[in-house]
Amino acid sequence: MIQELDIRTESRAVLRDITGEVQAVVAETGVQSGLCHLFVPHTTAGITINENCDPSVKRDILHHLGTLVPSTGLYLHREGNADAHIKAGLVGHSTTLMVEHGRLVLGTWQGILFAEFDGPRSRTVLVKIVPDS
Amino acid sequence: MIQELDIRTESRAVLRDITGEVQAVVAETGVQSGLCHLFVPHTTAGITINENCDPSVKRDILHHLGTLVPSTGLYLHREGNADAHIKAGLVGHSTTLMVEHGRLVLGTWQGILFAEFDGPRSRTVLVKIVPDS
Amino acid sequence: MIQELDIRTESRAVLRDITGEVQAVVAETGVQSGLCHLFVPHTTAGITINENCDPSVKRDILHHLGTLVPSTGLYLHREGNADAHIKAGLVGHSTTLMVEHGRLVLGTWQGILFAEFDGPRSRTVLVKIVPDS
Repeated sequence: MIQELDIRTESRAVLRDITGEVQAVVAETGVQSGLCHLFVPHTTAGITINENCDPSVKRDILHHLGTLVPSTGLYLHREGNADAHIKAGLVGHSTTLMVEHGRLVLGTWQGILFAEFDGPRSRTVLVKIVPDS
Repeated sequence: MIQELDIRTESRAVLRDITGEVQAVVAETGVQSGLCHLFVPHTTAGITINENCDPSVKRDILHHLGTLVPSTGLYLHREGNADAHIKAGLVGHSTTLMVEHGRLVLGTWQGILFAEFDGPRSRTVLVKIVPDS
Repeated sequence: MIQELDIRTESRAVLRDITGEVQAVVAETGVQSGLCHLFVPHTTAGITINENCDPSVKRDILHHLGTLVPSTGLYLHREGNADAHIKAGLVGHSTTLMVEHGRLVLGTWQGILFAEFDGPRSRTVLVKIVPDS
């Protein structure tokens, strides 16, 4: 079964830690070991994993992506968000995590980050937990 | 079982929508719910997900990747396609989609894009559908 | 069950071929067909797939990533490795491969590359093999 996480982003570009929300979905399913698949059904947002301890890491990532893919440029797409499509493509739309002892397996400093590049918006993250057989 | 999609690209760099071909593989298997794993067994091509409605988005992505990773530069690799290896690494070689009611779960504007960076060539995409147990 | 690969990197940035180590894990499990999920539980290292034949491809990828994301810059993160976080995010922390006839399914020139961006360090790669049911 696919669960949906609803996310409201508050600015144009933000890396929002959703580790707690995803872990809550894992807990609800009661699955002790398996896999957790995440998928972002949007074209100007993505999902990534990175440090969620020092908030300056998230700011550095967003700022540097803005340097690599400026919001204004010689883009053909007329909606003013071509950069957001490109950034989402670099970051990626899906990831897979492992579940053990009923918990997501993550490194000490890792968090799951929803990557908004064309907010503020209401967004959805799809979560599918597959138990070991 | 692994299915193969054969793709013929017509230019050096192209983002080719293969959503219909992948959906046809899902339909053939008869799987109603599960996962669809895609893997590109090449080193100068990849796979990504992005808008497949306005074609200018695909052109912006390709053009901007060409700006970030120029086709000519101080590369050591002597086959003239170092940029294609780097671009494929940025885009990625695999992705996982969810299947529900016998169909790929994608956002309204999303398509699955085969990313050719060193064509024209004959290419393969591997598809593995895993049903829920 | 999750297996751990221990990796010792010898320099700050390196792409290290771990295909053989991952294949050995597949062989130990005895799984003939299924999926192999890889996950890097670090925030300054990642995992990618690319050519492992001509070593100049790896050098070109690392050098070009260094051009796109310089090691020194106007970063807020004070540990001196902001670039490593950004590069790891571009490369990604997880990938999924297919297993058939007891072997990883890879293209002729493909290898699985552990991407160190803040070494030398002791690192871990998590491997989970899921057999077809």
